[in-house]
Amino acid sequence: MNLKFILEDLQIEVDIHKDIELDINIQGLNTLQDAQKHEISFLENKKYLNELKNSQATAVFVTEEFRSYVPKTSIALVVKEPYIYLAKASKYFAPKIVEEIGDDTKLGFNCTIMPNANIGFNVVIGDNCIIMDGAYIGDNVTIGNNTVVHPNVTIYRDCIVGDDCIIHSGTVIGSDGFGFATTKMGEHIKIYQNGNVIIGKNVEIGANCTIDRAVFSSTIIKDMVRIDNLVHIAHNCIIGKGSILVTQTGLSGSTTLGEYVVMAGQSGTTGHLEIASHTTISARGVVSKSITEPKKQWAGFPLMEHRTWLKLQGRITKLLKG
Amino acid sequence: MNLKFILEDLQIEVDIHKDIELDINIQGLNTLQDAQKHEISFLENKKYLNELKNSQATAVFVTEEFRSYVPKTSIALVVKEPYIYLAKASKYFAPKIVEEIGDDTKLGFNCTIMPNANIGFNVVIGDNCIIMDGAYIGDNVTIGNNTVVHPNVTIYRDCIVGDDCIIHSGTVIGSDGFGFATTKMGEHIKIYQNGNVIIGKNVEIGANCTIDRAVFSSTIIKDMVRIDNLVHIAHNCIIGKGSILVTQTGLSGSTTLGEYVVMAGQSGTTGHLEIASHTTISARGVVSKSITEPKKQWAGFPLMEHRTWLKLQGRITKLLKG
Amino acid sequence: MNLKFILEDLQIEVDIHKDIELDINIQGLNTLQDAQKHEISFLENKKYLNELKNSQATAVFVTEEFRSYVPKTSIALVVKEPYIYLAKASKYFAPKIVEEIGDDTKLGFNCTIMPNANIGFNVVIGDNCIIMDGAYIGDNVTIGNNTVVHPNVTIYRDCIVGDDCIIHSGTVIGSDGFGFATTKMGEHIKIYQNGNVIIGKNVEIGANCTIDRAVFSSTIIKDMVRIDNLVHIAHNCIIGKGSILVTQTGLSGSTTLGEYVVMAGQSGTTGHLEIASHTTISARGVVSKSITEPKKQWAGFPLMEHRTWLKLQGRITKLLKG
Repeated sequence: MNLKFILEDLQIEVDIHKDIELDINIQGLNTLQDAQKHEISFLENKKYLNELKNSQATAVFVTEEFRSYVPKTSIALVVKEPYIYLAKASKYFAPKIVEEIGDDTKLGFNCTIMPNANIGFNVVIGDNCIIMDGAYIGDNVTIGNNTVVHPNVTIYRDCIVGDDCIIHSGTVIGSDGFGFATTKMGEHIKIYQNGNVIIGKNVEIGANCTIDRAVFSSTIIKDMVRIDNLVHIAHNCIIGKGSILVTQTGLSGSTTLGEYVVMAGQSGTTGHLEIASHTTISARGVVSKSITEPKKQWAGFPLMEHRTWLKLQGRITKLLKG
Repeated sequence: MNLKFILEDLQIEVDIHKDIELDINIQGLNTLQDAQKHEISFLENKKYLNELKNSQATAVFVTEEFRSYVPKTSIALVVKEPYIYLAKASKYFAPKIVEEIGDDTKLGFNCTIMPNANIGFNVVIGDNCIIMDGAYIGDNVTIGNNTVVHPNVTIYRDCIVGDDCIIHSGTVIGSDGFGFATTKMGEHIKIYQNGNVIIGKNVEIGANCTIDRAVFSSTIIKDMVRIDNLVHIAHNCIIGKGSILVTQTGLSGSTTLGEYVVMAGQSGTTGHLEIASHTTISARGVVSKSITEPKKQWAGFPLMEHRTWLKLQGRITKLLKG
Repeated sequence: MNLKFILEDLQIEVDIHKDIELDINIQGLNTLQDAQKHEISFLENKKYLNELKNSQATAVFVTEEFRSYVPKTSIALVVKEPYIYLAKASKYFAPKIVEEIGDDTKLGFNCTIMPNANIGFNVVIGDNCIIMDGAYIGDNVTIGNNTVVHPNVTIYRDCIVGDDCIIHSGTVIGSDGFGFATTKMGEHIKIYQNGNVIIGKNVEIGANCTIDRAVFSSTIIKDMVRIDNLVHIAHNCIIGKGSILVTQTGLSGSTTLGEYVVMAGQSGTTGHLEIASHTTISARGVVSKSITEPKKQWAGFPLMEHRTWLKLQGRITKLLKG
């Protein structure tokens, strides 16, 4: 997408010096930290100022206040509400919902593709896979060897599933993350979710789960993760190797789990946080800030160490006396 | 449905005066307040006595005790358990699950209807829509312009979806509300859910949500609502314009949200209540009675103002000392 | 499956006396209590020692410590981690995901099988049933009379659904229970879920529910149960007659509900427990041990009598004073 076109379409006026070339190609949007050349980024929150200074982005949506922090290698796109403009710009990079043309499936040996499985263009499926009736495999999806996709699973376009996985019925992989920017007038502007989901090897996902695609880059489920039924994993989560997510757990956006984390039933996170390896969150626990020390068990909301929670419940019960 | 037939079939004896005509057509059931001529209503709870007095219903299931409150324009159908009879009568007005005949889809311009989308009779679809494989669009459904229905979505018969909507995979719109009347013998008698769901314009609904059809009239999702994944909206809810429902929230029956209400993750309501506009319910909050004052934030179960909840958690933590 | 083959494949050395015959047929795995001849069982937890002594199992995975408790009629399969070996052995008894041959559907009178319903081999469907588009009915499934299976429901192989049932869209019946054994090296070994789900008569199940198949024998939903949307029922649960499970409730494995139990919205159980008949669990309640006294109402987490919970909330609120 041509930068000049984007700026004209969004009616953004750039403070053009002679040495700025706007007639260049932009390939997508990204965070300040991850953005590469030919990508646009944004600064919404002061706490990312350092990342702005070091960003490789070709252009950055920024308020007047922080214009001076934009590195010389980037173009400052000065707007009043950078996040709104990020949202508005996201639609230029959204892929088609359905491709009209493309290649037939590259199918490995010994697969069972049931007759009413629905498979898009440019799909690659490894050896010994079973894709059952009513499963939908979107355009450009890649599936490894020995993987079973049960009936009525949906895998959105561009997602990747590894070897030896089992995905149970009704699970949705790669649906849009819950992202929008709300204007002062109350309009919710969709932030197109242009990333994907990557699932590692030997992962089992239960029935009717939802794993949203990333807004940028990828939501990642690493090897040997076990996910129960009705679990929600929001956009840009990273689930570490061997982690276990029990039924009805909900992870908000950009939650990063280390290795072998256990989230017990109906637990949750508030997003944009990390949980150290070998942490256990008890049933119904809500994690609202990062857990840095590994191998502990936590419970409750607000969260506390599990043994503290047990003690606290005892103390609370004493309130009934007298 | 003929009233005389209904009364005979349910073995209800009406105290017939000469001026009551039972050989009349009944078109459906409804609440006392909303019932029109040619509808039957019921009085189960004394608190609706005023509505009984003013009801336009042609006939009303009522106990002997309240027979005298039935207006002269209505026929008193005196029974011991009005709610049970409402349930028994509901089946006479249930539409067929699947129509056998009907018109082909009226399709707008420039639509992509994928080959394995399943579309019923008498369906109307606007311009520029995408209906993907495995989606089921029931009989008489109407869909506006520019709307995307992702794979394996189910829209039950008679529902209406507006313009510019996105409905993600696995979501079910118009399934039966959770309604039944339990007899003293312990039999659960289904109350057929003969209403529908109406979704406004520019609504995005995440994956694997459930939005139940109304028992009477409509469950309504107004314009610009944003719904995350795995959210439950029960029968006869009304979701105000621009409201946001975060993952795994559950709204019980007849919850009415004002405009721009935010229900954070894993929150809930107990039903038959209203929440004022611009209210925010924090994660895990449970609303068990109406919130009349707008623009406040609430948390916890039992619910309290968010800042009070924060203070209370501090106080609770102090119990650990000593 | 031949026992000798299993032992060789798993590299288990049996302390063979002359009178032990290993060249015998094993039909499956089971608990100590339920195992019959030609089944293998396991002792993982000392508290089941009595069941070991009385087990009918042909062979039992057991540690050296408890070898002497294995009855003379059983073969002791001495291993360091019996549960790991149970998991490893489970794959020998897993049925095929999809059968390649079998009989056409035995269909009753007056059924409506929509053209895009997907039906496996050896399926039996009673009279007056409706199976809608996108529903998947796995191999060997039996469905009674007058049952409606809505679009995009998935019923895995070998499950049984009774008469007069209604199953709403997106619901998954018979997906694998969440079972695995984790080795000391951190490998999660799948315990194949070789049981099924049995649903009684006159059961209504809402949209996007998940009911997992049993690891051994059956997950059972008895007559006249009512299940709302997005409810999770784990492997080997038994739901008593007339019970009511409200939206987003989650039952962990081997929860047994008596008759007419009510689980209100977003409630849960921690599994391996029983709840007495006519118990009501309030919204959000978590049951973590068995409830033996019937007809009471409970709330909270930790669970307490509902009236105690109400009183406690009052006491907690008083903490805000002073």
